[in-house]
Amino acid sequence: MNNKGLLIVFSGPSGVGKGTVLKEYLKKYPDTAFSVSATTRSPREGEVDGQHYYFMSRSDFDRLVENDGFLEHAEFAGNCYGTPRGPVEENLQKGIDVVLEIEVQGALQVKEKCPDALLIFVMPPSFEELRRRLFGRGTEDEATVNRRLSNAAREMGIAKSYDYIVINDSVDDAALQLESIVCAAKHSAKYLNEFIDEVEHDAETCC
Amino acid sequence: MNNKGLLIVFSGPSGVGKGTVLKEYLKKYPDTAFSVSATTRSPREGEVDGQHYYFMSRSDFDRLVENDGFLEHAEFAGNCYGTPRGPVEENLQKGIDVVLEIEVQGALQVKEKCPDALLIFVMPPSFEELRRRLFGRGTEDEATVNRRLSNAAREMGIAKSYDYIVINDSVDDAALQLESIVCAAKHSAKYLNEFIDEVEHDAETCC
Repeated sequence: MNNKGLLIVFSGPSGVGKGTVLKEYLKKYPDTAFSVSATTRSPREGEVDGQHYYFMSRSDFDRLVENDGFLEHAEFAGNCYGTPRGPVEENLQKGIDVVLEIEVQGALQVKEKCPDALLIFVMPPSFEELRRRLFGRGTEDEATVNRRLSNAAREMGIAKSYDYIVINDSVDDAALQLESIVCAAKHSAKYLNEFIDEVEHDAETCC
Repeated sequence: MNNKGLLIVFSGPSGVGKGTVLKEYLKKYPDTAFSVSATTRSPREGEVDGQHYYFMSRSDFDRLVENDGFLEHAEFAGNCYGTPRGPVEENLQKGIDVVLEIEVQGALQVKEKCPDALLIFVMPPSFEELRRRLFGRGTEDEATVNRRLSNAAREMGIAKSYDYIVINDSVDDAALQLESIVCAAKHSAKYLNEFIDEVEHDAETCC
């Protein structure tokens, strides 16, 4: 039976609640691994290397890029960020599902390198609802919220390149959608290829 | 929002328990429509036209075939059987999911006419388990069971042409797998195409 883990790429606009949905999902599936990104930026107070990020120098980062050591990487505001390939592939080989919570451009890079990755985009039930949630936080000024909304609009333009959409109307329901998507992926004929072969082989030797 | 129903094609070898799994699923989703086949064979005692089958003459059947009125059809032991296209499409248009419980050749015909159909094949956890179940019934002689097993072996050779595999280890779990597969299909980016367009459109007019 095919025991390889699933690579789950999880994206969605700021404020849509993807972290909360993932947290709810991970309560039920605590064996899922969460990929830790690498970055060249300095650690902030309280950040632990290997837990919040793998902190590395620019030269180490560049060397990893050259050796195809990232599933995706990008530069934001002068700092590099990336998903190290090694830990992800080790977990998948062990049969452990791995979640990457990354932005849309990174997700498309992953899909290119790993066509079997499951790309899941979290959407609000409506754009108006996203706006309500972002303004409802009350922690950011109007300009910041408007910037987030315009980023959200841009990101949602890429939603159709994803495999699945989770609609975060309520967290419980969204976590159930995620659960169903993962369960279904593990029952695709492609994923169960080896299992089908085994049963077929037994059938041939039996009949 | 896209409200079209899903066309669910459900197959599996005799004895695998697909009827029981479907029954369990339909308890939770009673609004799902179950397609009634047409046949040219005579009704057996107790069979009701339009409920167990649509009984029709050979000439009516042939006329429907000519008018592309079947999603799939075949002849067995001198009688014709087919899935009338009309009632299926009416239900799908109304947003009602439709289940076809048909054999593998019919399923492949449906996939050709309706590429969006969800093809689900029910498998036993092992071939040995299927053999145990068939012999365990105790209602058929050895030759009949062996014929069923050899049919099962042949059908399982086509399992890889299906989209999904439900493994019927326990009925409850198999019904949950089916539920997940249907839920996931309704969250594919393709199925939610219109919803994504709507949210994107709102985002554009807003930002």
